[in-house]
Amino acid sequence: MSTAGQVIRCKAAVAWESGKPLSIEEVEVAPPQKDEVRIKILFTSLCHTDVYFWDAKGQNPLFPRILGHEAGGIVESVGEGVTGLKPGDHVLPIFTGECKECPHCLSEESNMCDLLRINTDRGEMINDGKSRFSINGKPIYHFLGTSTFSEYTVVHVGQVAKINPEAPLDKVCVLSCGMSTGFGATVNVAKPKKGQSVAIFGLGAVGLAAAEGARVSGASRIIGVDLNPSRFELAKNFGVTEFVNPKDHNKPVQEVIAEMTGGGVDRSVECTGSIQAMISAFECVHDGWGVAVLVGVPNKDDAFKTHPVNLLNERTLKGTFFGNYKPRTDIPAVVERYMNKELELDKFITHSVPFSEINKAFEYMLAGEGLRCVIRMDA
Amino acid sequence: MSTAGQVIRCKAAVAWESGKPLSIEEVEVAPPQKDEVRIKILFTSLCHTDVYFWDAKGQNPLFPRILGHEAGGIVESVGEGVTGLKPGDHVLPIFTGECKECPHCLSEESNMCDLLRINTDRGEMINDGKSRFSINGKPIYHFLGTSTFSEYTVVHVGQVAKINPEAPLDKVCVLSCGMSTGFGATVNVAKPKKGQSVAIFGLGAVGLAAAEGARVSGASRIIGVDLNPSRFELAKNFGVTEFVNPKDHNKPVQEVIAEMTGGGVDRSVECTGSIQAMISAFECVHDGWGVAVLVGVPNKDDAFKTHPVNLLNERTLKGTFFGNYKPRTDIPAVVERYMNKELELDKFITHSVPFSEINKAFEYMLAGEGLRCVIRMDA
Repeated sequence: MSTAGQVIRCKAAVAWESGKPLSIEEVEVAPPQKDEVRIKILFTSLCHTDVYFWDAKGQNPLFPRILGHEAGGIVESVGEGVTGLKPGDHVLPIFTGECKECPHCLSEESNMCDLLRINTDRGEMINDGKSRFSINGKPIYHFLGTSTFSEYTVVHVGQVAKINPEAPLDKVCVLSCGMSTGFGATVNVAKPKKGQSVAIFGLGAVGLAAAEGARVSGASRIIGVDLNPSRFELAKNFGVTEFVNPKDHNKPVQEVIAEMTGGGVDRSVECTGSIQAMISAFECVHDGWGVAVLVGVPNKDDAFKTHPVNLLNERTLKGTFFGNYKPRTDIPAVVERYMNKELELDKFITHSVPFSEINKAFEYMLAGEGLRCVIRMDA
Repeated sequence: MSTAGQVIRCKAAVAWESGKPLSIEEVEVAPPQKDEVRIKILFTSLCHTDVYFWDAKGQNPLFPRILGHEAGGIVESVGEGVTGLKPGDHVLPIFTGECKECPHCLSEESNMCDLLRINTDRGEMINDGKSRFSINGKPIYHFLGTSTFSEYTVVHVGQVAKINPEAPLDKVCVLSCGMSTGFGATVNVAKPKKGQSVAIFGLGAVGLAAAEGARVSGASRIIGVDLNPSRFELAKNFGVTEFVNPKDHNKPVQEVIAEMTGGGVDRSVECTGSIQAMISAFECVHDGWGVAVLVGVPNKDDAFKTHPVNLLNERTLKGTFFGNYKPRTDIPAVVERYMNKELELDKFITHSVPFSEINKAFEYMLAGEGLRCVIRMDA
């Protein structure tokens, strides 16, 4: 029996207030409106950004809210005007969109869509400024336009990547955000050539995805930089060949790396968001050709500071957002790289819990345990 | 009668002390040693860098010295081991070299040769650590390895670009430094696409050469930024379509440019060396795809400072040195662009003086008059 056009009642994990365990509730999910898609979520994973907005420190808190943005699912129904997607399609919802009409979408170089660019403050759908989630008529806010901690969710069509139906959603769900962000930062932006050296700052999930990008690119040396030495053992599985802990040295880590590499690495990717790491990541690349790529999100009062001669000596500094991938156009091909066994994803998934135990995923992340915890919605 | 292997006595303009008029003297020019070339200079032009080291404020002064580095001439003789150059070849001496063997020369991306990179402190030839110039046996220091304010000079073969003998040396001499620096910054580094907008900070000779690069690239809008409004009239001849004087606005010039262009220019090139202009040039490019290129040389205590989100929003910041041209490999092709009437050079040459009046060239530059003054050595 088709549910299209009907309100669906299903389970969702609701964040009622900041920092408190999520509560599994029965919610109503309204049908998709114009340019919207209703998706049955099968697997969702937890990313730092969920925890950051759940914790809501230093932000305008928006509660009650359904968090979640790394996920894989199947289209249940589509709203008016949706083309290119139909019930049954396998999809990844993405926290940032691609309208295909704005100057950014029309530019080959940008993925920062004017209409659907990430908006962490918005809690409603853009079509009518209202939520599709409610409990007894009381609206529950959306998160990043995705809200994947729900058995069903409604997402703007511009935030839905249609992927190969044979791809295992319990694995490729992590391409919705973190793994694509790190992998793309290396392969799309830093672009190391075969045999070049790459430094990765921060060996969390995003940093290790950046290392995976360096491995796939044929980097000869992948130098991992992290304040936590226990990260190195794990990082070896991601192609990291050498490890530098800034705490082990009484000079700036950029100098340590320059000495290790005869003047600097060919490429660096910064995945911590620490302003000091950003500066080090820039200053550790070789003059003449070095490229440093910033991925980590800084504090709002931070200032990036360097001597301009570091730039004039032909270094390049670039930032990236979501690995420079256009969500709808490019992510299906990243899924194919996994299907072709070029990109490895399984090693990122260190934990798995049933939906009923979603709060355990938060505990793992808060304890710094593992990389990705996949939440099984049907369990 | 061949002068090869002989000491040549000829006229040179000697800077005896900082800030004092040059004095035309008879000097002895020793024959070229291993990997060196002796060149008869026919035309040389004056660049700010000559004036900076003549003025010698805040530097270790090195006098007496023969300045000059933008020039065109003809090979008189070559030293041991020199291949690819013979007497009679038309050449441009270049202030920075290309050994063709170091990691920079072997990299496609760099022109910052380890052996022959610009060295403003060195006053001797690298082969024996001695000068080839003397007056009554007393050595006179070299400048940038070129010392073109002399009828004859000795230059390392790695700093000599062999060019089309049909190219008029009184015009293409300006490609030795400033014009290639600005033009290359745009065409090799900023790389605007046809129809894109470009902002040029600083409308001196280098900035106007950057504008020329934007014009040749088919930029739709070329926005000139300068504190001196009288520059705008001149700049129109170089393709500059709009003019912004930061003094005319009570908000940062990057905001003015963003408003003029719907969010920012596609490319910017900074040619002043002012740290504030560098920051503005970076912050005025469009998010998603904007590229800012720094050319101007800053003060040694300056710090480039910006909010890292400006980078994370997919802006690129790059520095360049000598327009990213490899002196021997690439400059001959730039000369061909002039010969093909693609790149215009004549408009940069606003003054011309005989060698005997070389101090007038300094006066023009100090007064901010015109762009390039070509000095005719045979006059």
